[in-house]
Amino acid sequence: MHVTVTSPFWERYRGKVVDKVIPYQWEVINDEREIEIPDDPSGSVQDIDSTWSHAVRNLRVAAGDIQSDFKGFVFQDSDVYKWLEEAAYSLVYKADEGLQELCDRLIDLIARAQRSDGYLDTPYLIGSGAFAGRRPFTQLQQSHEMYVMGHYIEAGVAYYEATGNEQALEIAKRMGDCLDRHFGEEEGKIHGADGHPEIELALARLYEVTRDDRYLKLAVFFIKVRGQDPDFYDKQNAEIGDGSTDIFPQMRAWTHEYTQTARPINEQNTAEGHAVRAVYLLTGIAHVARLTHDEKLKATAERLWADIVRRRMYVTGGIGSTHVGEAFTYDYDLPNDTLYAESCASVGLCFAARQMLEIESRGEYGDILEREIFNGAISGMALDGQHFFYVNPLEADPQASRNNPDRAHVLMRRAEWFGCACCPANIARLIASIDRYIYAVHEDRREIVAHQFIANDAEFFDGIRIKQESNFPWDGHIHFTVTVPDGVAPAKLLIRIPEWSSDGYGITINGSESSQPAVRDGFASIGIRPGSTSIALSLDMSVRAVRANSAVRHDVRKVAIMRGPVVFCAEESDNVAPLWNYRVPSGTAPQSHVEYSANELEGVVVIKAPAFRLDDDGTEAPLYMNASRHAPAENAEELKMIPYYAWANRTVDRMQVWFDSDI
Amino acid sequence: MHVTVTSPFWERYRGKVVDKVIPYQWEVINDEREIEIPDDPSGSVQDIDSTWSHAVRNLRVAAGDIQSDFKGFVFQDSDVYKWLEEAAYSLVYKADEGLQELCDRLIDLIARAQRSDGYLDTPYLIGSGAFAGRRPFTQLQQSHEMYVMGHYIEAGVAYYEATGNEQALEIAKRMGDCLDRHFGEEEGKIHGADGHPEIELALARLYEVTRDDRYLKLAVFFIKVRGQDPDFYDKQNAEIGDGSTDIFPQMRAWTHEYTQTARPINEQNTAEGHAVRAVYLLTGIAHVARLTHDEKLKATAERLWADIVRRRMYVTGGIGSTHVGEAFTYDYDLPNDTLYAESCASVGLCFAARQMLEIESRGEYGDILEREIFNGAISGMALDGQHFFYVNPLEADPQASRNNPDRAHVLMRRAEWFGCACCPANIARLIASIDRYIYAVHEDRREIVAHQFIANDAEFFDGIRIKQESNFPWDGHIHFTVTVPDGVAPAKLLIRIPEWSSDGYGITINGSESSQPAVRDGFASIGIRPGSTSIALSLDMSVRAVRANSAVRHDVRKVAIMRGPVVFCAEESDNVAPLWNYRVPSGTAPQSHVEYSANELEGVVVIKAPAFRLDDDGTEAPLYMNASRHAPAENAEELKMIPYYAWANRTVDRMQVWFDSDI
Repeated sequence: MHVTVTSPFWERYRGKVVDKVIPYQWEVINDEREIEIPDDPSGSVQDIDSTWSHAVRNLRVAAGDIQSDFKGFVFQDSDVYKWLEEAAYSLVYKADEGLQELCDRLIDLIARAQRSDGYLDTPYLIGSGAFAGRRPFTQLQQSHEMYVMGHYIEAGVAYYEATGNEQALEIAKRMGDCLDRHFGEEEGKIHGADGHPEIELALARLYEVTRDDRYLKLAVFFIKVRGQDPDFYDKQNAEIGDGSTDIFPQMRAWTHEYTQTARPINEQNTAEGHAVRAVYLLTGIAHVARLTHDEKLKATAERLWADIVRRRMYVTGGIGSTHVGEAFTYDYDLPNDTLYAESCASVGLCFAARQMLEIESRGEYGDILEREIFNGAISGMALDGQHFFYVNPLEADPQASRNNPDRAHVLMRRAEWFGCACCPANIARLIASIDRYIYAVHEDRREIVAHQFIANDAEFFDGIRIKQESNFPWDGHIHFTVTVPDGVAPAKLLIRIPEWSSDGYGITINGSESSQPAVRDGFASIGIRPGSTSIALSLDMSVRAVRANSAVRHDVRKVAIMRGPVVFCAEESDNVAPLWNYRVPSGTAPQSHVEYSANELEGVVVIKAPAFRLDDDGTEAPLYMNASRHAPAENAEELKMIPYYAWANRTVDRMQVWFDSDI
Repeated sequence: MHVTVTSPFWERYRGKVVDKVIPYQWEVINDEREIEIPDDPSGSVQDIDSTWSHAVRNLRVAAGDIQSDFKGFVFQDSDVYKWLEEAAYSLVYKADEGLQELCDRLIDLIARAQRSDGYLDTPYLIGSGAFAGRRPFTQLQQSHEMYVMGHYIEAGVAYYEATGNEQALEIAKRMGDCLDRHFGEEEGKIHGADGHPEIELALARLYEVTRDDRYLKLAVFFIKVRGQDPDFYDKQNAEIGDGSTDIFPQMRAWTHEYTQTARPINEQNTAEGHAVRAVYLLTGIAHVARLTHDEKLKATAERLWADIVRRRMYVTGGIGSTHVGEAFTYDYDLPNDTLYAESCASVGLCFAARQMLEIESRGEYGDILEREIFNGAISGMALDGQHFFYVNPLEADPQASRNNPDRAHVLMRRAEWFGCACCPANIARLIASIDRYIYAVHEDRREIVAHQFIANDAEFFDGIRIKQESNFPWDGHIHFTVTVPDGVAPAKLLIRIPEWSSDGYGITINGSESSQPAVRDGFASIGIRPGSTSIALSLDMSVRAVRANSAVRHDVRKVAIMRGPVVFCAEESDNVAPLWNYRVPSGTAPQSHVEYSANELEGVVVIKAPAFRLDDDGTEAPLYMNASRHAPAENAEELKMIPYYAWANRTVDRMQVWFDSDI
């Protein structure tokens, strides 16, 4: 499969990654650019006392090029690897000799930093400061060693696939070999997994490219050893000492749920703990379940997926309801202003959705992926490509962020960088590889699954080509031209009918509406034969008032406005303050004025929804009043809304997704 | 003035204090009862690692009776003094030889613990552990030395007034003398105030009983020195060291606003920082402003009062919108579930209201005092008199408290005691002295101000007697019988017309409605003459739907139900879960079914309000739905409500004050 994205929406985003993000992040990780780091918004990891990244520098120290201490977070290496992965994806769709040369030199540095046995984690290799005398793999709860190596493996595989650079793959294999020597069921090996899942999904990728069973076996091992001994980390920690020299001193007090080790994986029913860890683990589980045809693991993936997307996910796709530990809380607990909804967690849910789609063509997987890529996953990056959010609130107020400590972690402006800089590169690598998030292909059953509406030209098995044209998400007309060479056996094209359009869509095949394809599990199935087939899909792009299940306390009697997959929000700069005075009746929402505005926010659809606005009482009015004697008046007034992902790109103002309604 | 409370409501509460609270707290502070201490709910002070109070024991150590280290919080002594103050008040209305003997012996111990120069603060006197080598008054931001002595002064004055015990007053005077030697404008004296206000109001009380000008001058000094040098604490802290041995290590990072020292007091316009400190300071300011006829200080008191009660107070009277630092946040920021609303802060606002009423007869002062004593101040104590809340939420959910760390400080059950045990004794001393919160008397202008409806028999100047009869807050008929001896000059009785009844009340004087008294600033003014005058006041006890100013984001389009001064809430055990499905139209609230239920919650009025309940979607329904296609149905259903102060006395269930309405 080779996919060339032609979607204007996504080409613009990909252009940002190539032109802005990759050069910007390169400067940052190479200390060519000093960065302003906000207070750590998570409250769960320490701030680092530096305005320099040190990330590449640590590798140079480990390689012996320079003498210095290790600096930065214990997982600082991953910033370099995620940058390399972005660069690899970008080279696939835009050749750049200079960039490729940078990458080649970086890989050479990484190879030299890697220990002869394949181990590579700079804090342990440099062994300065708090890491002096520490042995690898002795504090897996906190060390992130395999998390970091997993990120390299992803990057190395991607770069190898993009450029054929064998050294990139070799480093990854040597890492896998190193882990294989230290971890496994056998006596004498370590029976534990990394506190932060990542290595599982990385080893599955390494297996796919090398077909070396050891890597797959190791991925299975890391998934299944998790929670076998819930006290594993406690025991390792006890051997390290009393915690006074811990990497993250607060972590000892955290529960086993936090690291998804409270019970064996197939006994886990709910998504608990750190949201990013949970979705990285889910991605690995789904990937491994598919590769090993493990039905129990598949059921586990489905169970954890369902808990997240049916009970613990914001309408924007955000996950993680508290900043304390950047974590899940409990089913249906979705506060809009004290949440976390980390950008990385949304990106991670995209990874998971893609793997679920590889297992099974279920509309829900495509729907959630779509929800993320048009909302929660991209809201983390500013339109300028150089500022980033950790936290993606559904309701924000500059006064609250400034003056109420319970909301202080909600930034009103995307930041240049973070001490723990996971989000910027994660968003970038998703965007750079968006071509991998459009189709799933099952050549064995001759099935091409088109689960996302991102315009593209693609080539599949047997020379089958699909040209997908649209101006999605602004326009709901999607046109597929399928070309099958003569003599090729019949195949099937599955096209996702989004849940939001399931009651109103139209398909014409070669200009005829007569033979409507069957829709099963959210996919329309269309037989394709030699020659050219023209398929026109039209989706219902009416403005929708969406409500939450009544179990969601924080959204009761409220609606969010959506059009297609895009969640809309209102900013105070477009409306009369305060935003909470607006009420949006659900019945009239479809009558909203919809207009594509080329000059706003780099081109967005803007919605003006029929609404009512409460009269402002003013500060001279009492704080509390008899509601009958002082009934507030409401006046009809339009509410101007913009796509959620584009908020906080103009002034610093209040923003709101959920509005009081008439229900 | 001598007031004997006869109100059934308050006699029950006072009985609890005499029969339960005083003996219980005595056992606790004397380590005769081990206590279960929950995790410190504030997050702002450290937990103490003990299930024993040590409070009296510390005094015995300081007195040389036993050898031991100091144990407990730096302000542990205040638990003893607040108990003594409660006991003093209780002895006024219920003689108890045994209790008085306990108190006399305790005062003897306190006298022996006091240093010859009058200083008394056991951590510094014992000087063990972290206090070894520390000199008094060298870290006023954190030490609470004058806070503790202030509490003794309040107790000593109260006990002297109650029993005539001269030793009790002598200790207080010696403390005042000690402070007078160390603090003041003069060169060589310390130019700073205690980080936690309290000494200001205490010295004003000491002045009133001793008429020694030095104490009043010192009170003025402490108020006016505040914020003169905003860096005063920083400078003291710097002399102590780097902070590693601080009493409260986190405190150095807190702002000057937190301790109300960011600017001189007459330049402070908003109530900032720790809510309890702010209202204790306000109480002192109002008291001193009255005693010194200082118009600027009076204006400051009015300004700070207005900011609190008009912009930063919950409908229950709770104040302090965040648990981080137990603090105020900003105007109109009143989240119902992530708040603090500390019991002590509500009690402190009663102190302030009483002082404001002494300055001026303005209905608002009496209204707020009434709001506190029937809601936020008493909700902190369980009906059993032995369990206490720090935090008084307006919306509580056991699942949120258990599983969402941002709500973990909201307990669903009152606790036996706290590491920092300020609240239990504060509530008790308010209740024990409730007779002081009914009238203000201005003999100079022959005015008796009846600002609270608490049935009582009272005697005033010139032998004037007032008998106030009612079953308030359940019944709105208040009957005053005023008896003035022959030959006494005419006087005036001012009776507060509560804001909530200002549109509907009736007064008959000696059976006639013909001469309606003028109402000014919330008070009806009635001339009283020799003989007996019968005044019948009838208040509008209709159930009211109350709404908040539209500037309060968290209450927009919601109502709270009140009847008279009592705020009502719903508990899930009385209704269909979840509570948030109920909607209470404001227009039909007055048609609620109202019934006094003698068997519930020790006798309360129960309201059944006409309401609508949304159908529950159930967990099989999607998380998000098209609101038009899946419009939720509502059914008429009564909502049963109980007085807010009585919540959490039965099962552990969700509770809610504000309900969606029709506005």
